[in-house]
Amino acid sequence: MKNIYLLGAAGSIGTQTLDLVTRYPKQFKIIGMSLGSNHQINDDILKHHPAKIVCLRTSDKLKEYQELYQDTLFVVGDDGLMQIAAYPIEGVLINALSGSAGLRPTIKAIESKKDILLANKETLVMAGEIVKKKIEEHHVSLYPIDSEHNALWQLIRDENKDDIDQLIITASGGALRHLHRDQLQTIKKEDALKHPNWSMGAKITIDSATMMNKGLEVIEAHYLFDLPYEKIKTILHDESLVHGMIQFKDGSLKALLGNADMRMPILYALSYPNRAKQSLTPFELSDLHFKKMDFDRYPLLKLAYEVGIKKGLLPTVMNAANEAAVKLFLNDQISFLEIESIVAEEVNTFQNISNPTLDDIIQCDEMIQKKVFDRVKKG
Amino acid sequence: MKNIYLLGAAGSIGTQTLDLVTRYPKQFKIIGMSLGSNHQINDDILKHHPAKIVCLRTSDKLKEYQELYQDTLFVVGDDGLMQIAAYPIEGVLINALSGSAGLRPTIKAIESKKDILLANKETLVMAGEIVKKKIEEHHVSLYPIDSEHNALWQLIRDENKDDIDQLIITASGGALRHLHRDQLQTIKKEDALKHPNWSMGAKITIDSATMMNKGLEVIEAHYLFDLPYEKIKTILHDESLVHGMIQFKDGSLKALLGNADMRMPILYALSYPNRAKQSLTPFELSDLHFKKMDFDRYPLLKLAYEVGIKKGLLPTVMNAANEAAVKLFLNDQISFLEIESIVAEEVNTFQNISNPTLDDIIQCDEMIQKKVFDRVKKG
Repeated sequence: MKNIYLLGAAGSIGTQTLDLVTRYPKQFKIIGMSLGSNHQINDDILKHHPAKIVCLRTSDKLKEYQELYQDTLFVVGDDGLMQIAAYPIEGVLINALSGSAGLRPTIKAIESKKDILLANKETLVMAGEIVKKKIEEHHVSLYPIDSEHNALWQLIRDENKDDIDQLIITASGGALRHLHRDQLQTIKKEDALKHPNWSMGAKITIDSATMMNKGLEVIEAHYLFDLPYEKIKTILHDESLVHGMIQFKDGSLKALLGNADMRMPILYALSYPNRAKQSLTPFELSDLHFKKMDFDRYPLLKLAYEVGIKKGLLPTVMNAANEAAVKLFLNDQISFLEIESIVAEEVNTFQNISNPTLDDIIQCDEMIQKKVFDRVKKG
Repeated sequence: MKNIYLLGAAGSIGTQTLDLVTRYPKQFKIIGMSLGSNHQINDDILKHHPAKIVCLRTSDKLKEYQELYQDTLFVVGDDGLMQIAAYPIEGVLINALSGSAGLRPTIKAIESKKDILLANKETLVMAGEIVKKKIEEHHVSLYPIDSEHNALWQLIRDENKDDIDQLIITASGGALRHLHRDQLQTIKKEDALKHPNWSMGAKITIDSATMMNKGLEVIEAHYLFDLPYEKIKTILHDESLVHGMIQFKDGSLKALLGNADMRMPILYALSYPNRAKQSLTPFELSDLHFKKMDFDRYPLLKLAYEVGIKKGLLPTVMNAANEAAVKLFLNDQISFLEIESIVAEEVNTFQNISNPTLDDIIQCDEMIQKKVFDRVKKG
């Protein structure tokens, strides 16, 4: 029986994790979790997954829940996330929080000797070097549950790193892949949210359409697999059935395929080093199509490589500008292409520093997000 | 520096192995080899690859060669193959002989404590159980250099066998894949020899067109990877870029891709557990097409599964009937579809026995081949 702390239980990854816990009741158990702002979803989760500690986003229903679930400790907000991360019962922590809010709880959980199953991209994008040092210091493991990095992990696990010539991350091209750049001017939110293969949260679906998502993944892969950026490639792949590939120096290539179902990588990470018996839709191999990545079509991906190589605070600046810009786009306050121009401008005008501290990173994130929001308010 | 004994040096696998030895002079060295019946090829090989022991097919040029290459011991025929297999210098033996002649030298080499790199399918098809026992007894390793099995080996190497749901062997469909069965009546040798993707010897190219080749590979895979036949599947794949796949019980699938170039698997097996630096054509990923295997179109594949499951002498009968029938077809003595009917008839009329000895197997092979040749002679 594996004990699980689940941050972001009410989100897309969170609910899919809970589905697995329901399917494999003898293998997995929720010990702690953080909920979201939808009361109905929260009610439902609490009914089916009693936990020892639960973090609420706000204190609105704290009293009500505490009375209903007397064996559960309810905590609130960012401090509550830290209390879950530090909770003394042994278990793995799944960080499925969205955005930069995921960073501090990851670090707290590492300091509390919990292995991390990471879906929160920002943790490594913003603080890859700090997180890696912490992991080493506290002798814990960090496993990716992003489908792409999970696939690469499955492939790379038993290989000699010197044999690896390239990591290849696949990209569907996102909701707007059928459009040229000059057709993106008038894109509506509804169109950008129609991902061709994956059902995911709104933020990551927009990031797929701008290819910022793949940019964040490239930076993540750099830290996860300790490989230089010139060995990390991306490729367009229509069907989202091949999730990752490794090309070896002798010319062979290994690929990891599976349904576009996030429960697959989550289940793998939870079951590792074993594999669970399939209880989901069986995989059917079909024709697979690939195309060279188009950096002109997706300039944010190109920017992410540059930012990744320059390090320091730039990945945080890029991520924060994007996080704010996507919120503004989802709020109908800016156009689709303004996401790109805002991110590029923040990155290009920023005075970078080397070796930032965790506080530097978190302040920078807040500052850039505020700057982007303010700019739009001012019009 | 790895010492190599190369049986079948003048054949397709043999010359490709010699090309690798030339490309990697610091890694590989030919110690012994067997040549073929083409004097020009033999002359050329001897000039570029001096060896300690060389087996000639006949004694025609024995004296001439012995005078020219005084540091080399020349031996002749089947006995000569056994002398190479038993030669006392340490080294791996690559068995790239075509047909049932490959069986005895494999066993002799195992008894002489040589690791085997196996391209000769008949070794495991005819005597899988005996060969496996010998390998255990003498603590040697046997590695496949068939592209499909080599791919499966690369994939399966570090996996837990209990996690494997299916081995999947890809098949191009061979030279006649664009034709329906009713178009096969009047097929000419030249058409059956035009493999769409691979440049290989005549026997295996015909075996690809009848899908007998995939049948032999299924039986080989059963012995190589110690998995029951129901876990060994085949799939039609146009491009011959995916060579093998493993489907895990959790629904994930790993695939091994590479150019359709036999030097890739040979190089992998020779370099194992390391990988050599690429010196061949770089791999370019392209679109990949798959289709369900069609057992009605390729009845010999269906037969091979049945024969494999029944074991005993039946795999030998099937292989011997096929070997003789393909020779007759290549000699323009029977039609393409008669290959199938001859193999099916020999298998269906044979009184099988359990646990045959090596002598049983070799006698059975000779008997069936003679029977097929005689039948055609009698008309």
